[in-house]
Amino acid sequence: MTEHIQFSPEKDCLVLLDQRVLPNREDWFDCTTTDEICYALVTMVVRGAPAIGVTAAYGCYVAAREVQKSGVGEWRSALEAKLDQIENARPTAVNLRWAVREMRRIWNEAGSVALGELCGIWLARAKEIHEGDIAMCEAIGTFGGALIADGDTVMTHCNAGALATAGYGTALGVIRGAVDQGKRIQVIANETRPFLQGARLTAYELHRDGIPVKVACDNACALLMKKGLVQKVVVGADRIAANGDAVNKIGTYGVALLAKHFDIPFYVAAPVYTIDPETPTGDHVPIEDRTPREVTHVGDHQITPDGVEVYNLAFDPTPNELIAGIVTEKGVLYPPYAEAIAALFR
Amino acid sequence: MTEHIQFSPEKDCLVLLDQRVLPNREDWFDCTTTDEICYALVTMVVRGAPAIGVTAAYGCYVAAREVQKSGVGEWRSALEAKLDQIENARPTAVNLRWAVREMRRIWNEAGSVALGELCGIWLARAKEIHEGDIAMCEAIGTFGGALIADGDTVMTHCNAGALATAGYGTALGVIRGAVDQGKRIQVIANETRPFLQGARLTAYELHRDGIPVKVACDNACALLMKKGLVQKVVVGADRIAANGDAVNKIGTYGVALLAKHFDIPFYVAAPVYTIDPETPTGDHVPIEDRTPREVTHVGDHQITPDGVEVYNLAFDPTPNELIAGIVTEKGVLYPPYAEAIAALFR
Repeated sequence: MTEHIQFSPEKDCLVLLDQRVLPNREDWFDCTTTDEICYALVTMVVRGAPAIGVTAAYGCYVAAREVQKSGVGEWRSALEAKLDQIENARPTAVNLRWAVREMRRIWNEAGSVALGELCGIWLARAKEIHEGDIAMCEAIGTFGGALIADGDTVMTHCNAGALATAGYGTALGVIRGAVDQGKRIQVIANETRPFLQGARLTAYELHRDGIPVKVACDNACALLMKKGLVQKVVVGADRIAANGDAVNKIGTYGVALLAKHFDIPFYVAAPVYTIDPETPTGDHVPIEDRTPREVTHVGDHQITPDGVEVYNLAFDPTPNELIAGIVTEKGVLYPPYAEAIAALFR
Repeated sequence: MTEHIQFSPEKDCLVLLDQRVLPNREDWFDCTTTDEICYALVTMVVRGAPAIGVTAAYGCYVAAREVQKSGVGEWRSALEAKLDQIENARPTAVNLRWAVREMRRIWNEAGSVALGELCGIWLARAKEIHEGDIAMCEAIGTFGGALIADGDTVMTHCNAGALATAGYGTALGVIRGAVDQGKRIQVIANETRPFLQGARLTAYELHRDGIPVKVACDNACALLMKKGLVQKVVVGADRIAANGDAVNKIGTYGVALLAKHFDIPFYVAAPVYTIDPETPTGDHVPIEDRTPREVTHVGDHQITPDGVEVYNLAFDPTPNELIAGIVTEKGVLYPPYAEAIAALFR
């Protein structure tokens, strides 16, 4: 499919496929300012931990160019403020923080660099991160594909696909890797309320690729598993703690508990930089509380009565003991995860 | 709230509050023919096992009046065909079948009755069933309310409330019973995809009654339970098998498994005639496979890409071992359910 994250040299800005209106429309969103970068992150024009990381990397360049064009004398403090703004756009995915910190590190290393020069360095690094993401997905596909058997139906939750990365996906990378290995795979995409990433995005990109996909409401999970319709579960992650707990889209925890009950292997697929050694367990990850409107409305259609409150916690932590393996671009991690992760970062 | 199932003597027909467009609109739907009765049942103008039973009882009267007005000579076979049509409108809830069989039994008992006379007998019996439903709910409220503690937050799935019965509900009857007993109760209503009975109907009727209610997406269940936000779960049932397995709205089974994991008591509330001694286990209950459009669209808003298939199995069976008690109008049944149910029908 068309790359949904593009840097446009002509416009000198980041251009994003607007995921809020997929699959009904294919609109593009230009990010020429820090505010537009943050708007795109907060409202989920772009979403998915690795895609957020790549967007944030380009976002730092956009911020630097914005400061440069504004011609302020004290550009360093102005730029710092914009980096803080990007870093705090969303709290859960560690990739956002990672990308902004990476840009800060480079700035620090560059010493008393001029702003114009910093812009060039950051754009080059953002492109490297972008390309690295593509290679990361392919490696995850190779390692993860080997875990899937010919004929399997794989359930996935949310969208950890091409639209969540700059490559061909993490969880969907595993599925595409299995398909590349010649296996016949079917996918059940949980629709993933409230933002419907499964129904709208996973179904969209798998259907386009000709990989058989069927959408199910999130609450059908137990029945589908009981009927023997699910052989594996593969999901992405927004942050993995040092002990292997994986924080991912709301509902993942329930799917993992049900998979355990029905003895179905449950895998997490994510790049190494999604693992945060500074976060001891999943319970230490801040869970984003998003706007009620995502729950009260679907498109413009209101589904709850006026005045009724809703929950919209966007993520949940899946305890490591429910995870059969964590597929990274460096290979598959197995329990005990604390040791496997410590070894990875040594 | 206004009674949503009304017999209109002026119009000589059944009048239903159209639950498809709640909470945004309060439209009324007249059922003057068997086709309209069946349309209302199939498209869920009216839904909820006890409400379906009451509707079917009036539906038999509507069918008899329709045959009478048509003036056909062979009215018996014409009427039989219409009763079959009503009985087969939906497969899962046993209350529909029960109501039609009850009307057949009365017809049989009445012997060589004239059609006009049968109409009168059936209308009287439908009104009795209607009133019996109101009393049934109150008894369930009294028995079930005693199971709820002051300060509890009760999770419910789908709508087993006033809108699912002719009274004040079964699962929501338990909640209203607890409130009547002076207990301070809060409710978490799972939104219940795809038809959104929780978000649209449970929230609507509890909010109207001033009972605190908060809506959650179905997939938030595990996180909310883990956070200690749920003390009890109470749901309705469309059919309870002889062994106590309870078939209810899709997603109930998952909620029950998660409740078991988190050691939260899970109760089913339903009238005795929802228990079908002829159905040995939950796996023997036909699960309705409904139109894909309920999943692919919310209102007129399309959420899945064109050409992608979906699952829309409307119910799932919850095994008896996950159920802490079955609240009926005759009292609360406890395990072993096979014995408790056999004793009830002796």
